[in-house]
Amino acid sequence: MPATTDPDGRTATAPQDDPDAPVTLINSFVVPADRDDAFYALWTQASLYFRARPGFVSLRLHRALTPDADYRYVNVANWSTRHDFNAAHATDEFRAIVTADEWKEFPASPAVYQVVIAVDADADTDAMQPAS
Amino acid sequence: MPATTDPDGRTATAPQDDPDAPVTLINSFVVPADRDDAFYALWTQASLYFRARPGFVSLRLHRALTPDADYRYVNVANWSTRHDFNAAHATDEFRAIVTADEWKEFPASPAVYQVVIAVDADADTDAMQPAS
Repeated sequence: MPATTDPDGRTATAPQDDPDAPVTLINSFVVPADRDDAFYALWTQASLYFRARPGFVSLRLHRALTPDADYRYVNVANWSTRHDFNAAHATDEFRAIVTADEWKEFPASPAVYQVVIAVDADADTDAMQPAS
Repeated sequence: MPATTDPDGRTATAPQDDPDAPVTLINSFVVPADRDDAFYALWTQASLYFRARPGFVSLRLHRALTPDADYRYVNVANWSTRHDFNAAHATDEFRAIVTADEWKEFPASPAVYQVVIAVDADADTDAMQPAS
């Protein structure tokens, strides 16, 4: 699915099986190099909503170091469970945020993942096995 | 830049300014649903090389929960500095790994980022400011 400005297309949905498993949203954004400030303002407003929802764990917003990257911004957000993730994306408040006209400037390509391998240099690395 | 199987295209390079700043590689892979085992084996071999390089911090390999995701696997890998990241990608050993014929089955789309916003639910959230 290509990056889109359609509100439905820019809402990642997770499958309904195993609702208690953690999920990670990876959402990539097309942002012109001279529109950083506008993107920051809009994205921050949306992130404040998600940070306040039950099950929010953490997020990292990444900015590309190469200006010609397809996606200059990528948000990686962890949620405690699929249930919490889906609930946060099913409210009227979320709908109002995602349908804001300002988002039409910044096509997004969201997808929902699970972490299958985790390795930390300063930790026990026996976790180098698929977690599924 | 679309996903590619060309060894040069699938090597993410970071700019040379500020070589002491941390970087994050986000590398997205096209993997057919029935080729998980082959991808795991190949990716794990490559990751063992990176894990042993100076400056490697951590990685998380993500698998999509929706089978129709453009990129069924996404690796997010943190490095201490751009210098370390670039050095790890400039060796003959890396070149031998990335040019393996088996990779032609799995187009990749790598790009290098910096973390600009980090929020953790259970930590001080005053870090909600661009880090640039």
